[in-house]
Amino acid sequence: MANHSHTFPRSDTLQGESPALPEDPSRRRFIQGTIASSAALGHLGAASLAYAQTALQRSTISHYHVPATDQTVHWGYFSKSLKPLVEVESGDFVTIETVTHHAYDDYERMIKGDPSVESIYYWDQTRKGVNRRGAGPIDASLFGRGAGEGLGVHICTGPVAITGAEPGDILEVRILDLKPRPCANPTYKGKSFGSNAAAWWGFHYNDMLEEPKPREVITIYEVDTTGERDWARALYNFRWVPQTDPFGVVHKTIDYPGVPVDHSKVQENWGVLKKVRIPIRPHFGVLGVAPQEADIVDSIPPSYTGGNIDNWRIGKGATMYYPVAVPGALFSAGDPHASQGDSELCGTAIECSLTGTFQFILHKQATLKGTALESLTYPLLETQTEFLVHGFSFPNYLADLGPSAQSDIYKKSSVDLALRDAFRKMRHFLMTTQGLSEDEAVSLMSVGVDFGVTQVVDGNWGMHAIVKKSLFTGGES
Amino acid sequence: MANHSHTFPRSDTLQGESPALPEDPSRRRFIQGTIASSAALGHLGAASLAYAQTALQRSTISHYHVPATDQTVHWGYFSKSLKPLVEVESGDFVTIETVTHHAYDDYERMIKGDPSVESIYYWDQTRKGVNRRGAGPIDASLFGRGAGEGLGVHICTGPVAITGAEPGDILEVRILDLKPRPCANPTYKGKSFGSNAAAWWGFHYNDMLEEPKPREVITIYEVDTTGERDWARALYNFRWVPQTDPFGVVHKTIDYPGVPVDHSKVQENWGVLKKVRIPIRPHFGVLGVAPQEADIVDSIPPSYTGGNIDNWRIGKGATMYYPVAVPGALFSAGDPHASQGDSELCGTAIECSLTGTFQFILHKQATLKGTALESLTYPLLETQTEFLVHGFSFPNYLADLGPSAQSDIYKKSSVDLALRDAFRKMRHFLMTTQGLSEDEAVSLMSVGVDFGVTQVVDGNWGMHAIVKKSLFTGGES
Repeated sequence: MANHSHTFPRSDTLQGESPALPEDPSRRRFIQGTIASSAALGHLGAASLAYAQTALQRSTISHYHVPATDQTVHWGYFSKSLKPLVEVESGDFVTIETVTHHAYDDYERMIKGDPSVESIYYWDQTRKGVNRRGAGPIDASLFGRGAGEGLGVHICTGPVAITGAEPGDILEVRILDLKPRPCANPTYKGKSFGSNAAAWWGFHYNDMLEEPKPREVITIYEVDTTGERDWARALYNFRWVPQTDPFGVVHKTIDYPGVPVDHSKVQENWGVLKKVRIPIRPHFGVLGVAPQEADIVDSIPPSYTGGNIDNWRIGKGATMYYPVAVPGALFSAGDPHASQGDSELCGTAIECSLTGTFQFILHKQATLKGTALESLTYPLLETQTEFLVHGFSFPNYLADLGPSAQSDIYKKSSVDLALRDAFRKMRHFLMTTQGLSEDEAVSLMSVGVDFGVTQVVDGNWGMHAIVKKSLFTGGES
Repeated sequence: MANHSHTFPRSDTLQGESPALPEDPSRRRFIQGTIASSAALGHLGAASLAYAQTALQRSTISHYHVPATDQTVHWGYFSKSLKPLVEVESGDFVTIETVTHHAYDDYERMIKGDPSVESIYYWDQTRKGVNRRGAGPIDASLFGRGAGEGLGVHICTGPVAITGAEPGDILEVRILDLKPRPCANPTYKGKSFGSNAAAWWGFHYNDMLEEPKPREVITIYEVDTTGERDWARALYNFRWVPQTDPFGVVHKTIDYPGVPVDHSKVQENWGVLKKVRIPIRPHFGVLGVAPQEADIVDSIPPSYTGGNIDNWRIGKGATMYYPVAVPGALFSAGDPHASQGDSELCGTAIECSLTGTFQFILHKQATLKGTALESLTYPLLETQTEFLVHGFSFPNYLADLGPSAQSDIYKKSSVDLALRDAFRKMRHFLMTTQGLSEDEAVSLMSVGVDFGVTQVVDGNWGMHAIVKKSLFTGGES
């Protein structure tokens, strides 16, 4: 098997890590090891949904590198109309850089000295590196916040097209590797940083104890870049005060992504959460394919095509399965997190730039009949030990809520609805992939499946259901 | 230190296990070992809420044994008016037998040959072993189901009074040991069994795919008694058909606990969930103290005094903290489960009789000032590695909903409300026990606390929040 390395053609802004990963012997071993272990998955029988043979039938596997720059990101939206950065074949690997949309909360630690990130966040009186931020009107005629109106906030890298993908197919996305983006500012060499914003869209916002009420608070966290520590720590926090962007718009709240925070105007409180270690759980808040229901779709509410699911288990070693909705699938990645709790209660995680390596496996609709992936209409997560389904208040809100879905979704969500959807999806999963009757599935869900809160801050609220693979390894012994 | 063994005075019906646990050398070592490790808890500092010294100041520790018989259980309700079976001092141990209220789903496997359980379930044309089942009218004038009307279903053993306990104190309850009750029928020697009822109060009930709709389904599980296997397996299931109780009342649905199931009238389907192993998580669905708001309280909705919390983490090694609401605290145990998933989706767990050994530590109100237990107004769970708070749709529904609370609670619950309460309680926990500011607590909750579904089937729905103790072991290194 040969590994061919490709760097995304417009990668002239690429910095840092070499794109030629396969030429690094340790990397080559890593990738080959991955393929070998994927093949082994076939032996797990009913406990595995992956059929790695699809990839292995090819004699040439390519590895692409997609940097995150002002030319390669789409900020705050998914769109089936976006031109793919690269088209890959089933089985190929793609390393994708992702940049957090909260980096300007601390320019010194999360932007400065990193040309790629600088290019994305560039904003002077006449020009922004990336003008559109969100799915709103480009002329900001709705709220006057800025182009795209911040109706969608995530810096998404992509899309990556998968050759031959069509609606009805399933795209399997394996997350093979993932690591924090090192700080490029020499002052903080060897470190990485993230930001947590307790913001107006948080579950806590109208339910505070202390004055002033309400308030938005940003906490800056330090994350270990080397991977030696499994915890992050808080450095300082500050309360948001009105910030004037370079175009002169005043942002009284965190209503538009990438607004430069003027640290001369905020009060930094150092030594917060002093004795607390946050276990790290690096993952992507946003991974998904383009929906077909609308041309430009707010990146915040997750849906059947994935997107902003915000499940911390979507990290290294995990595999996602998405229903393909448009030709080419059009996969994008963003919203990188160093850690998050189930619920993402205050509105955000530790938002921290990450680079991930993915393998894409396309399962054509015609090959799905009789397999575990037949009739999969929702994003499914497989980890080493578990399967997870993702329930949303509205499983496909763009279709469910009609023409005004993109605004209505913010008014209609509830945890109760999301739990209902997670129940239905887990029942479907157990009945289709494990061959259980409805009575068996319902009993099993009550005695052996765990339901938890994914997030209550993304418009379309999410609940997940977790079933361990070890349940299906045989009842007798 | 001396161990004095007491058997509950009315234990003439006790069978099986010897009550004289301390005379078994291995048991003695176990208990002493427990006390030693409790003392060690004092070294955990901020990460531990337990102050075992309270118990160790006494030179005499007693160990009581409370069997479950028709004379020692209260079925379907808590009451501050119940005469205590035994009064113990802070530091004492009590072994409490608990019997599942679903045993009559399979008389052969869960009742037959066990005189204690037979006495509880006894029911002929003229007499029931335990007449009142539930908090409803004793003359069944409301629905005609039976005495107590099944408004409350759990067979609770107790109450145990704690000497000197008064409202405002905190009762710490340590679960030191817990094991399934072995089947007493020689045909099934060495095995234990449990029942899972997918019932009309389940989250799935009005949302089924297959006919007939709706339906109630009972699945009988086999549980390993020896402790060598960490999984249970399903044996068979059957659909509920109308059952006529010995008094002649027809129960079209599972509307009254302990109705004998006539197996000549049901269709047993063997071989269900054939290749599935259910991980066991033995725990008590119901542990709690008597509330003060009403005299006789339905055992189903959990509240600030605990009760039917249905969190599978309330098992061996766990410690619960309850606010004492009435003199003596009046602790009872019931609703034993062999396993349950987060949500208890279909209405029940694997309902399986268990015997537990508990230690009670009383924390007097005057000693709480400045400690982690000050101002604790909700049931708190501590495990080896985690703290959990329990949120409910209504934190104290008896007070929150007024005079008709006991019926209204079944109409007003939502997961959204329970999540709101869990958020508030976790914020309170972090601010009071860890000394965090509100801003610190809110950020930490979003990046390092996990919110999950405890149950959505107990009237007062529950969500929990989990924070790992390892977070508080020091931020620097």
